[in-house]
Amino acid sequence: MLGGGIPEKNIIAVLGGYGSGKTILGMQFINRGLEEDERGVFISFDEDEDKLIRIASNIGWDFGSAIKDRMLVLIRLDAADIGRSLTRAQSELPTLIETFDAKRIVIDPITLFEMHFRDDESRRREISKLCTIIQASGATTMLTSEISTDNPFASKYGEIEYIADGVIIFQHIRPAPLKRSILAVEIAKMRGVKHARDVKPYDITDKGIVVDFDADLF
Amino acid sequence: MLGGGIPEKNIIAVLGGYGSGKTILGMQFINRGLEEDERGVFISFDEDEDKLIRIASNIGWDFGSAIKDRMLVLIRLDAADIGRSLTRAQSELPTLIETFDAKRIVIDPITLFEMHFRDDESRRREISKLCTIIQASGATTMLTSEISTDNPFASKYGEIEYIADGVIIFQHIRPAPLKRSILAVEIAKMRGVKHARDVKPYDITDKGIVVDFDADLF
Amino acid sequence: MLGGGIPEKNIIAVLGGYGSGKTILGMQFINRGLEEDERGVFISFDEDEDKLIRIASNIGWDFGSAIKDRMLVLIRLDAADIGRSLTRAQSELPTLIETFDAKRIVIDPITLFEMHFRDDESRRREISKLCTIIQASGATTMLTSEISTDNPFASKYGEIEYIADGVIIFQHIRPAPLKRSILAVEIAKMRGVKHARDVKPYDITDKGIVVDFDADLF
Amino acid sequence: MLGGGIPEKNIIAVLGGYGSGKTILGMQFINRGLEEDERGVFISFDEDEDKLIRIASNIGWDFGSAIKDRMLVLIRLDAADIGRSLTRAQSELPTLIETFDAKRIVIDPITLFEMHFRDDESRRREISKLCTIIQASGATTMLTSEISTDNPFASKYGEIEYIADGVIIFQHIRPAPLKRSILAVEIAKMRGVKHARDVKPYDITDKGIVVDFDADLF
Amino acid sequence: MLGGGIPEKNIIAVLGGYGSGKTILGMQFINRGLEEDERGVFISFDEDEDKLIRIASNIGWDFGSAIKDRMLVLIRLDAADIGRSLTRAQSELPTLIETFDAKRIVIDPITLFEMHFRDDESRRREISKLCTIIQASGATTMLTSEISTDNPFASKYGEIEYIADGVIIFQHIRPAPLKRSILAVEIAKMRGVKHARDVKPYDITDKGIVVDFDADLF
Amino acid sequence: MLGGGIPEKNIIAVLGGYGSGKTILGMQFINRGLEEDERGVFISFDEDEDKLIRIASNIGWDFGSAIKDRMLVLIRLDAADIGRSLTRAQSELPTLIETFDAKRIVIDPITLFEMHFRDDESRRREISKLCTIIQASGATTMLTSEISTDNPFASKYGEIEYIADGVIIFQHIRPAPLKRSILAVEIAKMRGVKHARDVKPYDITDKGIVVDFDADLF
Repeated sequence: MLGGGIPEKNIIAVLGGYGSGKTILGMQFINRGLEEDERGVFISFDEDEDKLIRIASNIGWDFGSAIKDRMLVLIRLDAADIGRSLTRAQSELPTLIETFDAKRIVIDPITLFEMHFRDDESRRREISKLCTIIQASGATTMLTSEISTDNPFASKYGEIEYIADGVIIFQHIRPAPLKRSILAVEIAKMRGVKHARDVKPYDITDKGIVVDFDADLF
Repeated sequence: MLGGGIPEKNIIAVLGGYGSGKTILGMQFINRGLEEDERGVFISFDEDEDKLIRIASNIGWDFGSAIKDRMLVLIRLDAADIGRSLTRAQSELPTLIETFDAKRIVIDPITLFEMHFRDDESRRREISKLCTIIQASGATTMLTSEISTDNPFASKYGEIEYIADGVIIFQHIRPAPLKRSILAVEIAKMRGVKHARDVKPYDITDKGIVVDFDADLF
Repeated sequence: MLGGGIPEKNIIAVLGGYGSGKTILGMQFINRGLEEDERGVFISFDEDEDKLIRIASNIGWDFGSAIKDRMLVLIRLDAADIGRSLTRAQSELPTLIETFDAKRIVIDPITLFEMHFRDDESRRREISKLCTIIQASGATTMLTSEISTDNPFASKYGEIEYIADGVIIFQHIRPAPLKRSILAVEIAKMRGVKHARDVKPYDITDKGIVVDFDADLF
Repeated sequence: MLGGGIPEKNIIAVLGGYGSGKTILGMQFINRGLEEDERGVFISFDEDEDKLIRIASNIGWDFGSAIKDRMLVLIRLDAADIGRSLTRAQSELPTLIETFDAKRIVIDPITLFEMHFRDDESRRREISKLCTIIQASGATTMLTSEISTDNPFASKYGEIEYIADGVIIFQHIRPAPLKRSILAVEIAKMRGVKHARDVKPYDITDKGIVVDFDADLF
Repeated sequence: MLGGGIPEKNIIAVLGGYGSGKTILGMQFINRGLEEDERGVFISFDEDEDKLIRIASNIGWDFGSAIKDRMLVLIRLDAADIGRSLTRAQSELPTLIETFDAKRIVIDPITLFEMHFRDDESRRREISKLCTIIQASGATTMLTSEISTDNPFASKYGEIEYIADGVIIFQHIRPAPLKRSILAVEIAKMRGVKHARDVKPYDITDKGIVVDFDADLF
Repeated sequence: MLGGGIPEKNIIAVLGGYGSGKTILGMQFINRGLEEDERGVFISFDEDEDKLIRIASNIGWDFGSAIKDRMLVLIRLDAADIGRSLTRAQSELPTLIETFDAKRIVIDPITLFEMHFRDDESRRREISKLCTIIQASGATTMLTSEISTDNPFASKYGEIEYIADGVIIFQHIRPAPLKRSILAVEIAKMRGVKHARDVKPYDITDKGIVVDFDADLF
């Protein structure tokens, strides 16, 4: 289900709170590519490569072999120097994508890059720049993003949803006190594509993100 | 439907969240002008010209030919130096509009200009100045604007809706958890013109923005 | 209906969102004075004199002739240097009012003056000073004000409603999603005068602001 | 009704929005004292002495004669230099109160003093100091205060209600859109005195503040 | 009812708005100790000793005699120099408590100490330090605290409720406009003690704080 | 019930307000380890070792003996110099964990470390660094966290819930004014593990945290 529907070469932001399965979705997006023989790059912050491989492995995605087969690159950026990580990403990503012929890229989460900036303007400028660079490389990209604590439909800094070509919202709904909470997904933006406005429940299962209804969301 | 109703030489702000179709509306406004043999200028930030042409093309608007026929100019401003972009816009737009005889202008979004300022006063002053310059040139103008994360009826910085002659609100209504969301449009201001106070559902279709009810909104 | 009821020599703040008709009300207040052979001064920021005359003209108010007959002065302050505009207003208004024998003054909007200050104290001090100066001149004054994005019953900076002798609230009510919005007016303060506490719907018509109920609001 | 119930030598804060009648209540408190042959001091900011006398006169309170009879002093502080006004109040009030033998004091509003400070600590310290000085002088005091735009039960800076011995809330209730608004009064604090917790409607009439129910609120 | 139930040597924070009876509760806590022949220390800011004695006296608590009998010490800290007051409290309280053999201490309110700090970290550090010092002395302590204007279940600075061993909430409930308000008490925290989660109405009577239901709250 | 279910070597954040039993849960987590012959480290700020032992003892957990048997280490960090405490934790924890062979670690609360930083970026960087160090050591870790006063599902600084592998929410539900409040627990995140989305009431009893329903929450 994942992957087919995202327009090629687009940049999709996935907004979701903690525990909403953003990382899993990113992996699933990469894995779907692998199944189609598309190379992938997964960029994370301070996440142990082994841990990512183990989590993928639990779901039945063999990221270890994909890395050996040179179909997947896991890049771990250094949260200790985000400014430098961003500069590096801006300068090295194009070459990497071209050389490696990557078709799918995930940055998990883009929020750490955004956190580096003290004002809206420089944040917008630098993240836009990164997106332009990635887009020029021709890969389809997924950027996960933490959300605002005040508004579940806005990212932490309220900018990436405007920069990205598409926005997927992962929402954690608490219907009432003591009631079981529900995860729900919604496509809130998909530039140049007519898309559904439905909100559908999903679950984080041992097969990845599974949307309840048989919908071609992605 | 689009275009006929906006009073000539006015400046209209279009307020809407991400994915509400602001860019499409801007294109539609330009295209409507082209159909009337009115020249247009579309100013965007960091949006690839090809991408804009492709999106328009998907809807059946031939922006490529319009550019060749010298009926349309796409200007891509540099988000990397917004201050300079603004100065350039303030100094070069009048000549461009006059020389080119532009009747319709879109700035998509004005929010990036506004982001450059650290305080209400200088933001208001410079954006007002830009509007005065544009207005003096005699073109009808549409400024798209991102919205406040707290209040869907306010722009990100809460100023452009007071500066503009007219305000169109593109609202993303989520009636209840898990319910399909609705897009709705409302004219909240139109200086010197008696206008409807209705709120009407619209959709982003492959023919552009289509308001459900047969209304002469524009 | 407009004008008769505002106590002479008082300063009235009109609070309203964008598109609520504050400028029209200011013009109507001036026009009502003209009908009574009272001279008026209309102070605006960056609004083209021609545009104001045209808008008035659409409603049937002949501001052009009034200017020629020396019954009305339109003053356009420079938003590019608000600090200087304010100093000028504080120093030149008394003479102007006296020489011209103005009975009615409008500042549309006072918010631009308020925007110049970085803290509550200096804003309050300088706006109070301006009001004292105007009041001493003996004219009846209307100050339009933009509203807070959080609270429709508070001005943008939350001070002018305490400084003014009277406060009129222009409210934009959105009863429910997709429901037609309503404009409603309320007198929230009128120092030293017993006034109604009703809230009445009004419309911006081609005759100016018309309150639905036959009420002596002003 | 006014005055009898406030414990002697106490400091009462009156919290209310614009147009809630705080100034009238302050005058009424003073007038009640005059009726009991108690001298009063009314301190205001930038309010014309004549205007205060006129407003009082409209209600039938002869402040002009009271001033001539040396029963009342109106002090107009200079908002242009609040810091100096406060220092003056702190240093000169005790002598004035003692010499003049004032039994009742009003500061309308205390908010302007509070506005002078940039942080909670210095504001609390200086306003507390002023209150200590006044209290030592033995007069009963009423401090009117503007309210927070977010919370009608808190003063603008959220401190005076903790400093004062008593707090009276003047509330502007808007029951629903288009419904007539109601003014209601409540005693929220009265140190060392058992008091009612009722909320009662009141009106600003040509006899001053009149509470609807025959209650000994004050 | 008051006092018996607070675990010995614990620090209890009492959170309540203005007029909720925090000071009365502090006095009651001290008085209860006096009845058990436990010495008490009552620390306040800028509250006249005479006034405190008078308020206690109204309720039938003879603080004057207790002071003479060396069972009670009233300490008035200087709000004019909170930083110095805090240092003094930190250095002198242990000796005082030991020498005087105080079993119960009240600081009314702790908020003034907290106000001295500009950031969460130093506030937390210094208030924690004060609490550690008091606790080491072996006395049972009650700290009253002003509340946040946004959240009645949080203290003004949101820290003391985490530092204290126990938290009692004094809540001012306004059920609906024009309805009589209710005071209600709740124990929200009592470290190491199983406690009720009930919310019970109370009143400030001429016998002190009286909880309506015959509950062993304290 | 506690302990078995947390994936080994993971870092779990426990978010809860004051009085929600976070410290008790941390102790229970340690105690469960002790029962399984797993060594534990309990790190707290300014909490007296004796007090912690006493509280544990009340519940029947013999922390005193565990310390003597070298199965448990209680570390008291100095809130007076959080920066230094953090550096110490980052440098000494790995050795301690390795030498001592600790299987379970609690930091109660992590909020004090977070409080040391003035901006999101450095806070995220340093807390992430600490977590990476702890994780590398191979222990399973519980970090308690204070919550935002605005949003009970967000930590005070809104970051730890994104850094941690799992998040447990301790919620204090107040169903209505005067109604008994309820404590409820929910697992909001558990990276790489399918977990329930139920919300279950719990109580702080003399046996520790007891969830009402017979659930394998941990």
